[in-house]
Amino acid sequence: MRQGDMLLPTLRETPADAEIKSHQLLVRAGYIRKNASGIYSFLPIGNKVLRKVEAIVREEMENAGAMEMNMPALQPSELWKETGRWYTFGPELMRIHDRHEREFALGATHEEVITSIIRDEVKSYKQLPLSLYQIQTKFRDEKRPRFGLLRGREFLMKDAYTFHDSYESLDEHYEKMYTAYSNIFTRLGLNFRAVIADSGAMGGKDTHEFMVLSDIGEDTIAYSDTSSYAANIEMAPVTATYERSNETPLDKEKVATPNCKTMEDVSVFLGHELDQGIKSIMFKVDEKLVLVVARGDHEINDIKLKNLYDGAMVELAREEEVRKAMGAGFGSLGPINVPSSVEIVADHAVQALSNVTCGANEDGYHYKNVTPGKDFEVATYADLRFIQEGDPSPDGKGTIQFAKGIEVGHVFKLGEFYADKMNASYLDENGKSKTMLMGCYGIGVSRTLASIVEQYHDENGITWPKQVAPFHVHLLALNMKKEEQKELAERLYDKFKQAGIEVLFDDRKERAGVKFADSDLIGIPLRVTVGKQAGEGYVEFKLRATGEQTDVHEDDVVAHVTSWLNQN
Amino acid sequence: MRQGDMLLPTLRETPADAEIKSHQLLVRAGYIRKNASGIYSFLPIGNKVLRKVEAIVREEMENAGAMEMNMPALQPSELWKETGRWYTFGPELMRIHDRHEREFALGATHEEVITSIIRDEVKSYKQLPLSLYQIQTKFRDEKRPRFGLLRGREFLMKDAYTFHDSYESLDEHYEKMYTAYSNIFTRLGLNFRAVIADSGAMGGKDTHEFMVLSDIGEDTIAYSDTSSYAANIEMAPVTATYERSNETPLDKEKVATPNCKTMEDVSVFLGHELDQGIKSIMFKVDEKLVLVVARGDHEINDIKLKNLYDGAMVELAREEEVRKAMGAGFGSLGPINVPSSVEIVADHAVQALSNVTCGANEDGYHYKNVTPGKDFEVATYADLRFIQEGDPSPDGKGTIQFAKGIEVGHVFKLGEFYADKMNASYLDENGKSKTMLMGCYGIGVSRTLASIVEQYHDENGITWPKQVAPFHVHLLALNMKKEEQKELAERLYDKFKQAGIEVLFDDRKERAGVKFADSDLIGIPLRVTVGKQAGEGYVEFKLRATGEQTDVHEDDVVAHVTSWLNQN
Repeated sequence: MRQGDMLLPTLRETPADAEIKSHQLLVRAGYIRKNASGIYSFLPIGNKVLRKVEAIVREEMENAGAMEMNMPALQPSELWKETGRWYTFGPELMRIHDRHEREFALGATHEEVITSIIRDEVKSYKQLPLSLYQIQTKFRDEKRPRFGLLRGREFLMKDAYTFHDSYESLDEHYEKMYTAYSNIFTRLGLNFRAVIADSGAMGGKDTHEFMVLSDIGEDTIAYSDTSSYAANIEMAPVTATYERSNETPLDKEKVATPNCKTMEDVSVFLGHELDQGIKSIMFKVDEKLVLVVARGDHEINDIKLKNLYDGAMVELAREEEVRKAMGAGFGSLGPINVPSSVEIVADHAVQALSNVTCGANEDGYHYKNVTPGKDFEVATYADLRFIQEGDPSPDGKGTIQFAKGIEVGHVFKLGEFYADKMNASYLDENGKSKTMLMGCYGIGVSRTLASIVEQYHDENGITWPKQVAPFHVHLLALNMKKEEQKELAERLYDKFKQAGIEVLFDDRKERAGVKFADSDLIGIPLRVTVGKQAGEGYVEFKLRATGEQTDVHEDDVVAHVTSWLNQN
Repeated sequence: MRQGDMLLPTLRETPADAEIKSHQLLVRAGYIRKNASGIYSFLPIGNKVLRKVEAIVREEMENAGAMEMNMPALQPSELWKETGRWYTFGPELMRIHDRHEREFALGATHEEVITSIIRDEVKSYKQLPLSLYQIQTKFRDEKRPRFGLLRGREFLMKDAYTFHDSYESLDEHYEKMYTAYSNIFTRLGLNFRAVIADSGAMGGKDTHEFMVLSDIGEDTIAYSDTSSYAANIEMAPVTATYERSNETPLDKEKVATPNCKTMEDVSVFLGHELDQGIKSIMFKVDEKLVLVVARGDHEINDIKLKNLYDGAMVELAREEEVRKAMGAGFGSLGPINVPSSVEIVADHAVQALSNVTCGANEDGYHYKNVTPGKDFEVATYADLRFIQEGDPSPDGKGTIQFAKGIEVGHVFKLGEFYADKMNASYLDENGKSKTMLMGCYGIGVSRTLASIVEQYHDENGITWPKQVAPFHVHLLALNMKKEEQKELAERLYDKFKQAGIEVLFDDRKERAGVKFADSDLIGIPLRVTVGKQAGEGYVEFKLRATGEQTDVHEDDVVAHVTSWLNQN
């Protein structure tokens, strides 16, 4: 492709609304243009990368035995009402009505549509399992679209759905999809982790998020420094390895702690470490008040609390509720002299403590030298805190580190959730009607493209890995007015095309400086420059990522490129 | 692919709402399923065909030098307001607002979006011409969606746009697109015509529709029986080759024609041929009344009338307007004694007539023996009628035949239409600002798929041409319980896959009759049946389209298939 013929507008300035590197560089290098907030066009060079990412996704889906199909964006509201999501999805789900006032959802996801198709077409266990996918545009009206392609309102997604007559079959396909996802992100050259995630309101069993590691990620991942273990920090269990203190319990002592609002304030005021105090936070679990107690340096994890109470509604108690029940406000709560209407639960770490500080349930006062068991009783000890860096990894291998991640994929055992609500059933071997089991699996294709740029760039532009680069070779003729340069460049351009090498030829009448800057910005992995050595038949090879340079004779150019392309 | 693992539900019954063959067969053979009126999912086998059609379209677009890009479905209403189409497009344009009450059009076409991108990015004649395309989902809220994929509300389209600094450049790219379209429909095996069409309200110059010939088509094409000439019947000019009558003009005579409402009634009543009368129809051209006169066997073409008056607003006059001006109703109008406020125009054919019948402008009366020039004057003679079968072809070669057609493609020289309204300008070589010129080019991809089925089917099902067939070979094992059949079929399945032959393997435990019927319905071009001759190593080849059969030995099967695949 000749650069002069392409729509490939590069910008020197960073767009004002582009906060992160992938957004800045994809706009500056002419890959995308914004049409409205969170809505982008892919210009030709961006479309090329998108197609390459898509092709890798498609190959691995086919390897996993999934069949491609194609479902519509316009989805009858009746289907969304069957699952209740018409009411619960919120304003993210875009809604539209046709000329006959019939309501439709603009597809944010396709569980309802695929389940409606499968319930109509599949009647027998003999037709199961089924594994289906599509690569299709999705619509979600994000409250704050930002970060370019990372959080858009219209985006490209690969979504897959599997249907089963047993949990063994669901497990097997989940495993296949998990492997396919690992292959996809590995082939894309991404530094990622498969992270144990929260199954949330879906009521499903297992779920993993595939996270590309990046400082701009909005999720925190807890991962082992020596094994493949990784989990969303909300999900990582803490292994209870606390050693009981040997100190002799002392008598508790009430002390004034004026103006101490937080655990940090108290520890500074009383001159002890954070882990020599215990914090007490009041939650409402359904309608019951629960005082949750944890070591001063730990953070209470309300998802674990929720799981302890088997998915009940969990929220922080309001200050007036706290004061009414305990006689003190947030800053001075503690587990001593708690009314019987309030249940006390504590994190495992608390059980190992002696002679620590806690709130006195009296504004401005704390107790010193408090010991659990002696000074207060706990109804249940459980794992109730967030994991921390330095904790042992839950799989017993190594210690936990934290990283930020961008979610690019998600695999999910839905179980009966949708099939039950939508009456997707089949007859088993004995002619008995049963509810299907289901899994769903998504990859944000355009988001993945952006996350590649987050990991592959330097101060001058993008540094595409070659498997997704828009072209393999960027051929630059530094001075098209010099006949020998022009001729050599044109010859090489023809040779590349004949050899099936994807080449972008900068044949523009621009200064060399402009061409080099654009080339760095666009980020094609191999640059072949025709310059002053053209007379001797030599050109310069330069690898965009490493800066490595070599001079190569015209006759060897194609062989060199081919050999470079064939390196893994 | 094993048929037992696929989502490939076939139906014996024809769906009640499916009026035409492509709709019936695509549903019955498991290619598509309806999600709502005019909205379909492509099941896996349908998606395969769609991808093959897409691939051919893509290849020919690349050959024509067009660059693929991708624009969003959600389009800011502001852009549509710039061209005025927000108000004029009507209810076919689906509209939606986001959570901030900002309005969007759901892309029915992308002229506005592409023009907004190009006006922002292109500043100089040096960046022109540009040729861009996308393959993308479109939304049009049809009043009466019908005929399955032929008139849907959500459908796949290839749309291309070109931008230019001269009409020569626009002409050149129009020519390239025209050729690409001819190549595409030829490669798809379609019997089609490129038809001169009406540029309508677009104000553009040339426009051609690509029509697949089919009895269920909603457009009528006038084509030459000996040349490539074809036009929408509204557009075909009539060559004036009328020979003047030699008869001596007689004196006109008023006769009663009771209960004669039409030209047919009058000719029967008075006992003459249709072409021995003239019909007179009153139009309103802007605010002026115009009496249009044509020979009795001809149909007046209001588009030609509109063109005669240079695009004025043309409509039929209402009965009360007619009666007020002429003193008679619709059935008795004629060009004699017409008030001066009414202009008379006539089709060329009228000028050659003598002694014919016309209305007397008095209810229930006509004149006999009327001759133009003698009995009435005509302001303008022009080509004002529809072409008819048997007329000479306008290109001077052969005579005109009619056919029905399905519009699958459209190429259009828009000229300045959009660029002018949206201020898409560039600086020319002298630094002067000029309005860009534009062309647009569309192919209905899913509609094309359906039109292939309209041309490729028989009473038992679809008969795909091999270039778009979902698979090359349908491998049938008639009795999977017989070990020798099962083993041979499995061996062949492996061999086909290794040879890169696309094969669907019916490994189901169904009766032979069911397998044959499904195979005919699905329409894969080559069937390889493993049956009773399996013991001797023989299988049966059968071409779906012709029914031609051969027995082939196992060892020769792959070679035979490969050689068949390589035939043209």
